[in-house]
Amino acid sequence: MCGIVGYVGSSPAGTFLIDGLRRLEYRGYDSSGIAVISDNGVAVNRAVGRIDNLVDSLGSEPPQGGTGIGHTRWATHGPPTEANAHPHRGGNGEVTLVHNGVIENFQPLRDELIGKGYTFQSSTDSEVIAHLIAEALGQLEEDEAEPDNRYVAAVQQAISRLRGTYGLAVLFDDCPDMLIAARFGSPLVVGVGRGEHFVASDASPLAGHTDRIVYLADHQLAVLRAGSLTVLHRDSGKIRPDIQLLETETEQVTLDGFDHYMLKEIYEQPVAIRNAMRGRLDDQNATAIFGGLNLTPQQLRSVDRIILTGCGTSWHSALVGEYLLEEFARIPVEVEYASELRYRNPPIDPGTLVFGITQSGETADTLAALVETKRKGHRTLAINNVVGSSIAQAADGGVYLHAGPEIGVASTKAYTSQCCTLAMLALYFGRLRHLSYEAGQTYIKNLRLLPAAVEQSLSCDVQVRQIAEKYQSASTFLYLGRQYNFPTALEGALKLKEISYIHAEGYPAAEMKHGPIALVDTDTPSVFIVPRGTTYEKVIANMEEVKARGGPIIAVTCQANPAIDDLADDVIRVPAIPEYLQPIVSVVPLQLLAYHVALLRGCDVDKPRNLAKSVTVE
Amino acid sequence: MCGIVGYVGSSPAGTFLIDGLRRLEYRGYDSSGIAVISDNGVAVNRAVGRIDNLVDSLGSEPPQGGTGIGHTRWATHGPPTEANAHPHRGGNGEVTLVHNGVIENFQPLRDELIGKGYTFQSSTDSEVIAHLIAEALGQLEEDEAEPDNRYVAAVQQAISRLRGTYGLAVLFDDCPDMLIAARFGSPLVVGVGRGEHFVASDASPLAGHTDRIVYLADHQLAVLRAGSLTVLHRDSGKIRPDIQLLETETEQVTLDGFDHYMLKEIYEQPVAIRNAMRGRLDDQNATAIFGGLNLTPQQLRSVDRIILTGCGTSWHSALVGEYLLEEFARIPVEVEYASELRYRNPPIDPGTLVFGITQSGETADTLAALVETKRKGHRTLAINNVVGSSIAQAADGGVYLHAGPEIGVASTKAYTSQCCTLAMLALYFGRLRHLSYEAGQTYIKNLRLLPAAVEQSLSCDVQVRQIAEKYQSASTFLYLGRQYNFPTALEGALKLKEISYIHAEGYPAAEMKHGPIALVDTDTPSVFIVPRGTTYEKVIANMEEVKARGGPIIAVTCQANPAIDDLADDVIRVPAIPEYLQPIVSVVPLQLLAYHVALLRGCDVDKPRNLAKSVTVE
Repeated sequence: MCGIVGYVGSSPAGTFLIDGLRRLEYRGYDSSGIAVISDNGVAVNRAVGRIDNLVDSLGSEPPQGGTGIGHTRWATHGPPTEANAHPHRGGNGEVTLVHNGVIENFQPLRDELIGKGYTFQSSTDSEVIAHLIAEALGQLEEDEAEPDNRYVAAVQQAISRLRGTYGLAVLFDDCPDMLIAARFGSPLVVGVGRGEHFVASDASPLAGHTDRIVYLADHQLAVLRAGSLTVLHRDSGKIRPDIQLLETETEQVTLDGFDHYMLKEIYEQPVAIRNAMRGRLDDQNATAIFGGLNLTPQQLRSVDRIILTGCGTSWHSALVGEYLLEEFARIPVEVEYASELRYRNPPIDPGTLVFGITQSGETADTLAALVETKRKGHRTLAINNVVGSSIAQAADGGVYLHAGPEIGVASTKAYTSQCCTLAMLALYFGRLRHLSYEAGQTYIKNLRLLPAAVEQSLSCDVQVRQIAEKYQSASTFLYLGRQYNFPTALEGALKLKEISYIHAEGYPAAEMKHGPIALVDTDTPSVFIVPRGTTYEKVIANMEEVKARGGPIIAVTCQANPAIDDLADDVIRVPAIPEYLQPIVSVVPLQLLAYHVALLRGCDVDKPRNLAKSVTVE
Repeated sequence: MCGIVGYVGSSPAGTFLIDGLRRLEYRGYDSSGIAVISDNGVAVNRAVGRIDNLVDSLGSEPPQGGTGIGHTRWATHGPPTEANAHPHRGGNGEVTLVHNGVIENFQPLRDELIGKGYTFQSSTDSEVIAHLIAEALGQLEEDEAEPDNRYVAAVQQAISRLRGTYGLAVLFDDCPDMLIAARFGSPLVVGVGRGEHFVASDASPLAGHTDRIVYLADHQLAVLRAGSLTVLHRDSGKIRPDIQLLETETEQVTLDGFDHYMLKEIYEQPVAIRNAMRGRLDDQNATAIFGGLNLTPQQLRSVDRIILTGCGTSWHSALVGEYLLEEFARIPVEVEYASELRYRNPPIDPGTLVFGITQSGETADTLAALVETKRKGHRTLAINNVVGSSIAQAADGGVYLHAGPEIGVASTKAYTSQCCTLAMLALYFGRLRHLSYEAGQTYIKNLRLLPAAVEQSLSCDVQVRQIAEKYQSASTFLYLGRQYNFPTALEGALKLKEISYIHAEGYPAAEMKHGPIALVDTDTPSVFIVPRGTTYEKVIANMEEVKARGGPIIAVTCQANPAIDDLADDVIRVPAIPEYLQPIVSVVPLQLLAYHVALLRGCDVDKPRNLAKSVTVE
């Protein structure tokens, strides 16, 4: 799960590579590296840690040359050392490459290559590919008429032996004006410029350089030169590249005075939610409007089951969606981990609609699950934040969040925008079926309360910081809620886990007594999300159970209630809003709690250890 | 969530009460107490901790008297102190009672009673009931013709004000030969003896004393005297008690040389699984046989969706069941937390069959969820281990595990028996639909491999103990597996959490990189359940990701595999068995790991803090 960039042209490659890697840093930031080719051969620079470390290592004389590749890494095989950083070299250095993906059979291939005398410098799976290409190259005759053919054939022979996924960009020492890119399972985008070509693992590095792009498909390979682009398919040979217009706006994302992107994005939520709803609320028909579903009302009415799939935070918004769609559309909903759905082959009948939810639209597990269900003939829709993303292209239709770029690795505004979008979808599906005009009107009225309610919930920031100070040293947290508040418990726990490295876990509050309550002692805080609603008193009884065992209690609630004030050590109040929209409001103090605890513990809030913003490997 | 006993007769009440409380200790063991009434008034003894402490506090002269009540507590409101232990007294001591359940509106009632001058000795919700009865009693006239009427009316008036659940046994100071029991939501069983009557929260204390029992229903109240039993319903008044024959065998459960019941029950698993399968495998028709489903094959064929519900460990076996039923019966399955299902009102269509899974058959959440779905007309089946349990009575039909009594609070043999039973149900449903005769035969052949495979997996005990020594000080553990091995990861984590109080969490292995991997460092062990199967190499890639970040790895696998041997710090081998039955085998080392870690940390393995065996409150 890494970021790839490549350049061939007349400008200095290094400038584009470094700038592109910065834009891709969300994909991984364990280590990075670039290789630039010139008539003097290939110069490789690599560094552990952030791109800044790489820039420092380049010193005042960055490598010169018009062809190059770069990589920012999220370690899959081998620790984040300089030796494991990309680019990797194969043979005696005649092949240099960067790789995104996971090679599952790298171990037998490695053993075989070692047997043939190849020496490995790293413990990565990627280095195997470099040697395989060098091995193939050595056995191929030069083709004087079509000199590129030999390089293409070497890459094709090598990748034919791989099991797993790859996005590759390959340089050849003796061919300094060419770059080969190949894809299976890991996205690659080629940018078509004037006298230059680009390649990258997504379109973000291309913005500002060119708006003409070609999405490579699986089993496609591209030969890039300054003045030409050739695309080949494994089976059908040379094909005409499908040049599309890049719609991404070049938006410069800055901190705007905030200390961290995460904090900024938490505070952007009222605006993000407004943007998610903009133009989508139809007062006249008391429903929601979606432009890109590409399904007729009649097709949508025939849906008798919905599967929502995603990973991490998106899986939590899927759970909120389950409650919403089941309550308002009365359609049975199943929520599946994308990684499990993909391989599970569950029975799905023809009336099932599958939603893939992902902020980036590049999440490998979600993308693959969606493609797998689509392959079986099911209708698929994507909910994602990035226009033109891989999932947006793969699905039959979808909805964009319009939340704006999310930079912090821990998702905040994308989560609440996802929940808000699912709430609008529940209204839309409901109004195609049982939901009355009047109920639709009330629903819209309540949706319109959201931006102000979220805005108001931000005012707990100072209080939450004090609570964070109190509990910053805890090594374990429980988050508890029921019904609509259960996903909020999961999401609050995940935020804390991701950025403060404290083991926090969410549970349905009533499930606590079936095991997790064993963790409760005077050092283990429990965060109860108990705004109001149908199980309000039941959750208060669960608070009593924790209190009886001496556990500190933090409660997120709405109105004043003497029972909660009595039981909880700290009470955070958020505005009351109808139960089904409450998750969008109640999660805000939990985002802030995670932020402040992480900050107090000296953690890197925007780039927590071991994680990457967009998980583009399985 | 507590245990209740009561006695009226000519023998000394104390003897039955203490013995009964010991048998009910699985329901809670924070504190306990008894009250015995004689002509000298009521003598109350209470103690914090186990029943043994109560016995010690009684000294050499236990209270004399032929009428008494007893209680063993799992704290819901207020810490486990002597003041909060039951029995509680109301008014000026004229009412003494024990209570199981949760009173949700106890706070306003308490405020009201304090306003009237009542003094509270405890912070429990239960004491409110005692005062309410005393209050009502004070305002009722004596009825010379029917003196019992006044007591009955006082109890009825008091419980009419309660919101929540209760099982009650009440003594009156001035009526030493009578006991009143009342039930709503918390089970009560009356035992009919010769010149004596018993009451208890389940039938286990009655075994050996009488085999004639009456299950009280909600809104029923019983007046027990040595020579008479009167049962009244809130609405219809006096009713004829339905006396049933108690089927439970009196089985004396002993440690048989093991140090703990949990260890003994882990070792009993080969036998328990054999018992679960006994008489249920039909070679001739290549299917399974179930005697008590009470549904015709035609009814079962019309099932187009299954909901499996349970709590804690039973929820994990439900997940295994989901994979099994979806694969072999090709029926879409939804697994729901019982506590969530109960209040969620999900859309369920007429073809949906609901299974409630619980070891004890008394789990309040599961019972309530089953009753709620049955109320809406859905067919319900119970999978449980205790003949004649509440859920067995409530469901349309069901399957008994026949695992024998499970005493350790952390479920082991009941879990594997549940998985085995669900595997047989998947075969049965499959053979009613798509599964071929031949596939059914193979399935049966594989089921028969289970007892020996589980037996063989126990041989890792010594090795697991060494691993436990190595990691006993870790404060957090991750458990990771995919597909059929995902529930095993959840179950392994829950075992460790329950008895060692280490924060362990299970995840689908691929989901790790979407957040939990932030927890990985050199002090955080990851347990990978990676026996074989479809996602074998994917999980090995996940192991690489953990290894790259320095996390110690414990792998549970089958055959030797150099990649796993290379990556894992410790490799535990279990016998290979077809993928869909592997969970029953692979969980064994995880049970042993939890056991040894808990033991090394000095925890009470059979009675972990804060937990109770059977969770009989919501």
